[in-house]
Amino acid sequence: MPQLSQRGKEMPASAIRKLVPYADEAKKRGVKVYHLNIGQPDIKTPENALKALRNWDGKVVEYSHSAGLLSYRKGLAKYYQGIDINVTHDDILVTAGGSEALSFAMMVAFNSGEEIIIPEPFYTNYNSFAKHACINIVPITSYIEKGFALPTLEDFESKVTDKTKGILICNPSNPTGGMYSKEELLQLAEFAIKHDLFIIADEVYREFVYDGLVHTSVMHLKGIEDRVILIDSNSKRYSECGTRTGCIVSKNKELIATALKYAQARLSPPFFGQILGEASLNTPDEYFKEVYNEYVERRNFLVTELNKIEGVYTPMPKGAFYTIAQLPIDDCDKFCQWMLEHFSYENQTVMMAPATGFYATPGLGKNQVRIAYVLKKEDLASAVKVLALGLKEYKKSMM
Amino acid sequence: MPQLSQRGKEMPASAIRKLVPYADEAKKRGVKVYHLNIGQPDIKTPENALKALRNWDGKVVEYSHSAGLLSYRKGLAKYYQGIDINVTHDDILVTAGGSEALSFAMMVAFNSGEEIIIPEPFYTNYNSFAKHACINIVPITSYIEKGFALPTLEDFESKVTDKTKGILICNPSNPTGGMYSKEELLQLAEFAIKHDLFIIADEVYREFVYDGLVHTSVMHLKGIEDRVILIDSNSKRYSECGTRTGCIVSKNKELIATALKYAQARLSPPFFGQILGEASLNTPDEYFKEVYNEYVERRNFLVTELNKIEGVYTPMPKGAFYTIAQLPIDDCDKFCQWMLEHFSYENQTVMMAPATGFYATPGLGKNQVRIAYVLKKEDLASAVKVLALGLKEYKKSMM
Repeated sequence: MPQLSQRGKEMPASAIRKLVPYADEAKKRGVKVYHLNIGQPDIKTPENALKALRNWDGKVVEYSHSAGLLSYRKGLAKYYQGIDINVTHDDILVTAGGSEALSFAMMVAFNSGEEIIIPEPFYTNYNSFAKHACINIVPITSYIEKGFALPTLEDFESKVTDKTKGILICNPSNPTGGMYSKEELLQLAEFAIKHDLFIIADEVYREFVYDGLVHTSVMHLKGIEDRVILIDSNSKRYSECGTRTGCIVSKNKELIATALKYAQARLSPPFFGQILGEASLNTPDEYFKEVYNEYVERRNFLVTELNKIEGVYTPMPKGAFYTIAQLPIDDCDKFCQWMLEHFSYENQTVMMAPATGFYATPGLGKNQVRIAYVLKKEDLASAVKVLALGLKEYKKSMM
Repeated sequence: MPQLSQRGKEMPASAIRKLVPYADEAKKRGVKVYHLNIGQPDIKTPENALKALRNWDGKVVEYSHSAGLLSYRKGLAKYYQGIDINVTHDDILVTAGGSEALSFAMMVAFNSGEEIIIPEPFYTNYNSFAKHACINIVPITSYIEKGFALPTLEDFESKVTDKTKGILICNPSNPTGGMYSKEELLQLAEFAIKHDLFIIADEVYREFVYDGLVHTSVMHLKGIEDRVILIDSNSKRYSECGTRTGCIVSKNKELIATALKYAQARLSPPFFGQILGEASLNTPDEYFKEVYNEYVERRNFLVTELNKIEGVYTPMPKGAFYTIAQLPIDDCDKFCQWMLEHFSYENQTVMMAPATGFYATPGLGKNQVRIAYVLKKEDLASAVKVLALGLKEYKKSMM
């Protein structure tokens, strides 16, 4: 049989996937597993979006334009204008989720072998997209004790080589829950200008910003319009992950024209995702208020309860619906597996994402886990209780 | 501003896109344009599939499994078993259309810089996927006067280098309408074994095979199971192009496991496409019979009428819904543009796909066009009439 490609072999497998068989085994033993590991919200998709789907009365499910349905792109432009992002539908290309938008951005902005600086911890799949595009990630570490603030300009300077072509930020951040201030972004813009870099900004959690903070988009910054690529998605905003609808946005006309060539190759983004997406733009404010309040309550509860556990520390997330928690453990991969394999309390256990998967620098994050607060409060309460007991038991088992 | 990537610049733009502005201009002038250029059928999506969509009563549109919904994959396995393709759901990975399946296949089987042999004329987007995956297409010419039969073993041998890693066939073929016999496929299998190659087979037109011919799948061939990758799509089978639902199928476990890593990076295939796809598996036979009869009638009519035009020759397609026609012209790109820009008869004109876009060897296909018979017979009749008159006029204008 012919050999598979080397790049396929090197393509990272999701770290969390390694834990899936252990979770499945636990479930087979009758243990309830609280999934704190995933970014799949339990929030309902807006009823108006689902209604649009049910009412669709076409007869042929045709390809849409490769850049997306014109009416949807015009709706998106209006949405952006409403949050002071000055774009037209020509600056927007609808994609199969934020994933495809990221993939297009990397292919279009980077040559094979060029480098992208990304603050770590970062969303694991950035590794996969980078590997797919044959570009190299240069991580720049941010620290839990600083609330995962943007690394300093000096830190960034130290990462520049003659292959550096861009920066990727996730703001608000999955996995940290951190958010960058306008000042931090201005510093980043200055850095990008100085070294002639692209800035790719994954802002899919834009609406999930707490404590009265105001989100600044890289698209708000003046003088860097040509080098900014916005990655967006409907998955979390409207809890419609499965539709695979997102977009890539840029004022750089040549960049969008080039991304369109990639978009033409795959013919069109998913049609019904666009039907839902367009209807979702009319989601009433009450929906967002309810969702927002729900997340704030969960966050406050989770963070307070976690910090009550001996040896546990987690900063208060400013946005998104994740937090990184530091635990009194030696090895998060081992611990997360142990929780599924060997621990249960009243037939319950907890699945978390080992933070090592979010760091590119080897050895970092070994005593951290990412916890998503996408479960209702009662379940979070049970999960934290189980985690606290598990930590005690784990400590004993290590002695 | 930073430079865009070289690969982005080299990414081919769809040849047909160059003609779109001329078609738009013609429409603005009030001219009716018959689109013989596209693979978007006017056939209705099965009612049972649309019904399943409207009846979907979930509350949250969640990610599905990265490999696709289990129930859908099991349904697909049953479909394949029904056509003597012996696979289980574990051999199937649901993708965003045949496009993503092709992209995964190339990434997984080929290293950057390796070569894939493809009989030309071939589906234009293969160029884009190959460019995306940094692999090189080695075309092997098939000829209209031989009905676009598979090139001989000697022809194939002459294309082998130390970088050859696989072959890609489209069977039945877009753009030629040709179909390979079992004998031709056995020859290909022998060649693949001899040189240790993968065979990627795009069989999305499997159901569109005429004149009592029987389709042989590469998955039917014995002894090459490990090297065969099947590309499939719901787009044409159920006229649901917009759903973006297809799959990659292989008995090579390692290959599917590696493709799954690419699938995990993009999280999940479109959910509603899978809902439609699963329901489509239960489409009643009458639907296919009706569609089949419709295409046969269109094909017979189109081919007969085309061959009546002086200087025009097109072979009788065995499958799919395209035919390549040889015209008495010097340059198909020029002619197709001229038809849109300068010709109309009773306020009608015709848009066709210049065949040069389907050949990788420079200079080939200059007097050929691809015509899709995805319009109803009356429209085809008008279109052929307009084409015949256009050819006459064009000849005069050239003198």
